[in-house]
Amino acid sequence: MNFLNEVANWYPDAVSFAAGLPYEELFDVDAIDRYIRVYRRHLAAERRMSGPDIRKELFQYGRTKGTIHRLVARHLEVDEHISVDPETIIVTVGCHEAMFLVLRALRSDRHDVVFSVTPTYTGFSGVARLVDLPVRPVAGGTDGVDLDHLRAQVAAARAEGLRPRACYVMPDFANPAGSRMSVETRRRLLAVSAEEGLLLLEDNPYGLFHDGEHRPALKALDDERMVVYLGSFAKSGLPGARVGYVVADQPVAGAGSFADELAKIKGTVTVNTSPIAQAVIGGKLLEHDCSLVAANAAETEIYRRNRRLLLDGLSARFGSVPGITWNSPSGGFFVVVTLPFAVDDELLRISAREHGVIWTPMSYFYENGGTGNQIRLACSLLTPDLIESGLERLAKMIEERLTETTPNDVVDAR
Amino acid sequence: MNFLNEVANWYPDAVSFAAGLPYEELFDVDAIDRYIRVYRRHLAAERRMSGPDIRKELFQYGRTKGTIHRLVARHLEVDEHISVDPETIIVTVGCHEAMFLVLRALRSDRHDVVFSVTPTYTGFSGVARLVDLPVRPVAGGTDGVDLDHLRAQVAAARAEGLRPRACYVMPDFANPAGSRMSVETRRRLLAVSAEEGLLLLEDNPYGLFHDGEHRPALKALDDERMVVYLGSFAKSGLPGARVGYVVADQPVAGAGSFADELAKIKGTVTVNTSPIAQAVIGGKLLEHDCSLVAANAAETEIYRRNRRLLLDGLSARFGSVPGITWNSPSGGFFVVVTLPFAVDDELLRISAREHGVIWTPMSYFYENGGTGNQIRLACSLLTPDLIESGLERLAKMIEERLTETTPNDVVDAR
Repeated sequence: MNFLNEVANWYPDAVSFAAGLPYEELFDVDAIDRYIRVYRRHLAAERRMSGPDIRKELFQYGRTKGTIHRLVARHLEVDEHISVDPETIIVTVGCHEAMFLVLRALRSDRHDVVFSVTPTYTGFSGVARLVDLPVRPVAGGTDGVDLDHLRAQVAAARAEGLRPRACYVMPDFANPAGSRMSVETRRRLLAVSAEEGLLLLEDNPYGLFHDGEHRPALKALDDERMVVYLGSFAKSGLPGARVGYVVADQPVAGAGSFADELAKIKGTVTVNTSPIAQAVIGGKLLEHDCSLVAANAAETEIYRRNRRLLLDGLSARFGSVPGITWNSPSGGFFVVVTLPFAVDDELLRISAREHGVIWTPMSYFYENGGTGNQIRLACSLLTPDLIESGLERLAKMIEERLTETTPNDVVDAR
Repeated sequence: MNFLNEVANWYPDAVSFAAGLPYEELFDVDAIDRYIRVYRRHLAAERRMSGPDIRKELFQYGRTKGTIHRLVARHLEVDEHISVDPETIIVTVGCHEAMFLVLRALRSDRHDVVFSVTPTYTGFSGVARLVDLPVRPVAGGTDGVDLDHLRAQVAAARAEGLRPRACYVMPDFANPAGSRMSVETRRRLLAVSAEEGLLLLEDNPYGLFHDGEHRPALKALDDERMVVYLGSFAKSGLPGARVGYVVADQPVAGAGSFADELAKIKGTVTVNTSPIAQAVIGGKLLEHDCSLVAANAAETEIYRRNRRLLLDGLSARFGSVPGITWNSPSGGFFVVVTLPFAVDDELLRISAREHGVIWTPMSYFYENGGTGNQIRLACSLLTPDLIESGLERLAKMIEERLTETTPNDVVDAR
């Protein structure tokens, strides 16, 4: 990923299919003040707080678990039909801190191990390394998770004397694969989780942005409380607030809930999430009756349009080129393209320098790295014009590469 | 500390000398909008940013190292005569994240060890535990750090095959001791640090709030770049922003500066500090030409008044009581009172329940805990009336205890 960032810096004029950032054209800088005012009115009207109390809520050190937990719970109820006790929610400094708290809590000694569906979001792998927690891969299979492989990996770890703690999954439009689990797979995954006593860490930053078919989150089907739900407002709220959350309603003997354990770690690493940043997100939630589906109607439409433009553009250019295939996610930010030649950092550099187009090698998302023949294209940040010109440039790069490539260079798809 | 929080929750009407929080009466909730507007004008006028770029700066994911680093550098120059390259500053989620980044970076394996002057801020000890880094105590002595003991502790660790990495110090009005190092001690500490190749982690949240005599921070005297400077805006800026920083200008072979190493960890644990929260602090800095001394003129006067009221009130009540002594810090939030009887959680509970006054046992700030006969009184959050009534209650508690206490109960001061 460092190399990718360097390439992006060296060639700032290249069209970037690499950045999975939220769309910027709808940002309204005056919204910040407005959100804070809306939140202040809410504190006065609904929570009956006095002027000095409101001042204290926004300015002073705040509750470790957060201040907008009730609004987050209402959002989960409204948009995801997930019912949770607000006391089991910790509002965090983005979803990364949520992952950090959970993984640090799960790592008691060197016998603990977690699993993640591959290809895996690099941020998760990074947090696991930071807390010295080994991550073992589980194949994604055709439906987002290979349950037989998961069982086998858990059994193998147990046989080695290790303690399997959790499996990290992104059931909806995973980063980077773009895959989505069927409802049936979700239910079967939950059953495996309960049988194995293995927590599921459900990361759901993109679930909102679908083409019309909503599927229940694992947490919405979680009768056994096996799911720790990792939430982000970076895509659905406002990235600059750096506000995320975790729902950890697992009972813990003598300690309330798992959330209370996480709160102790939170109190050490960042003390509390900025109440001002929380007020910004709180105001946005309140403006839309806590529905982020409603708040993101325009964004959802833009991401749908961008995916359509990207997929149509791929069809138009590569529909009849042998060896080039891609998936067709019905939501999220990412499409994966399989190419008939090897992809590595050197090709990325050439692509940026000679052709002015940047993308992410899928090898970055596997623990072993190496080369592969897949690339991830993100379309979330781009305008229609940039998607078109980016695809033109990509087509030229691919054309040149195909001309140069001998059959020996061709590698198997992972 | 958990017990202390519980007691505070059980007896909300007790006067609390426990909370070292910033004074609240001057908080102005409308300042948040104003600070953000001031910062936006600065981006447009001084940094020549376009409307879309300003929008992006506030809303989008941001620079890992932070966005207000130049303003922080200017503040350090203006208020502390510390000159640093802004590229060696990381803006963090409060000073706690700064401590986390530094300690995590310093812990490569189980041979690493750090030192801290005792009594030690519990937050530092907590972060060290979180990253599995052992902390060994160094006596505070009469001048804030016992240099002979520091040398001896470093030598002892080396003899055990350990790798001494750093010593944590709060040279100005330390929490909890209230002690302040002389300038001569600072110079000698820097010499020891350079000789031993031991970094100094200088935490300076209270240095601003003195009675008139400014002393140079270690970092201002740091010719050998042995000091990692931990900064907080919680007391001098606005606690609710949760913005702090670290200056880490140590060169690292092949990796730029130590700050660049810290940035990699920061990018994993919280990605970046909220640019909106940074804009709030940036606006406050800009409103006062980056001088927090100027920005905190009223607060500094209030803390001075409160310390005076507290110290005068102690003299008036205990000036002639044998066995009761206290220090007289010329700045900061804390005074330490030595009592002629043992202090423990049970006495704290009685004090809160029977007398309506809460304080912090100094034993909390020693790794071994146990009982002691000292208490920490914080006066930063209190109004004059509360200081008076709190002292009245404290006097009653002490009077009752003295009546009950037999000479056998008396313990030596630590």
